Amino acid sequence: MADILHRVGVKTTAPDKVYEALTTIDGLAGWWTDDTKGDPAPGGVVAFRFPVGGFDMEVQETRPQARVSWRVVAGPDEWIGTTIDFDLHQQGDYTIVLFKHGGWREPVEFMYHCSTKWAIFLMSLKSLVETGEGAPAPRDVQISDWH
Amino acid sequence: MADILHRVGVKTTAPDKVYEALTTIDGLAGWWTDDTKGDPAPGGVVAFRFPVGGFDMEVQETRPQARVSWRVVAGPDEWIGTTIDFDLHQQGDYTIVLFKHGGWREPVEFMYHCSTKWAIFLMSLKSLVETGEGAPAPRDVQISDWH
Repeated sequence: MADILHRVGVKTTAPDKVYEALTTIDGLAGWWTDDTKGDPAPGGVVAFRFPVGGFDMEVQETRPQARVSWRVVAGPDEWIGTTIDFDLHQQGDYTIVLFKHGGWREPVEFMYHCSTKWAIFLMSLKSLVETGEGAPAPRDVQISDWH
Repeated sequence: MADILHRVGVKTTAPDKVYEALTTIDGLAGWWTDDTKGDPAPGGVVAFRFPVGGFDMEVQETRPQARVSWRVVAGPDEWIGTTIDFDLHQQGDYTIVLFKHGGWREPVEFMYHCSTKWAIFLMSLKSLVETGEGAPAPRDVQISDWH
């Protein structure tokens, strides 16, 4: 098993802002992909669609200002059954996001790509909360021939 | 053991450009940190210094347009003995970089941070080769309270 890990600090003294961006359709659409639909409450499923493909996430847990957990229920084979956790805590002027996309069966080349792309999208989340403007798909920063 | 993985594609039809940016002091200083000194040939040691701290890398292997490998011989405790590999291949108009910072003993919070920061620096490498301008320290993109 292999995991993708990231840490960003979002400069804000309002610890609910990052949590909102992870638990509302508008928030999620503001940093990951414009085309976001579904029910972001625990037990609900959120469908994220990109110019090519997408993912359905079952919401496992939402704890205000502390944790958001998803399980991938549809999408590329490599993603099915993996888990995505956002652990949040406030540290001075920053909301710290510890991100884990866990349970990859093999460290395939697609995992390398997704790791870099997650970093880019977490920077988009940071930008959304700090400036009001994220860079969700299809306006996301391109990292390679795989976009 | 835990690994940091990334994949970027650098748009260039000259497959030696990325290799040069990984195996010359000028190249390395152009995307990772201004303060880069040492011997980037196999068996040499390159010293990378940042506003706070730094790393010494022993060059393990350099294979033109294919692979650059380092072993960390000085730096933060968590980094000592870990390895950093850049595997390169040309795919159409892109030089693909598969990056691995391998052999972390534990997935500590600092590893989360380094994973995101590596993504940012690989985007700086991409920018350096594509535009002639990278964003090395101390002009690197800040991701958090840990910079």
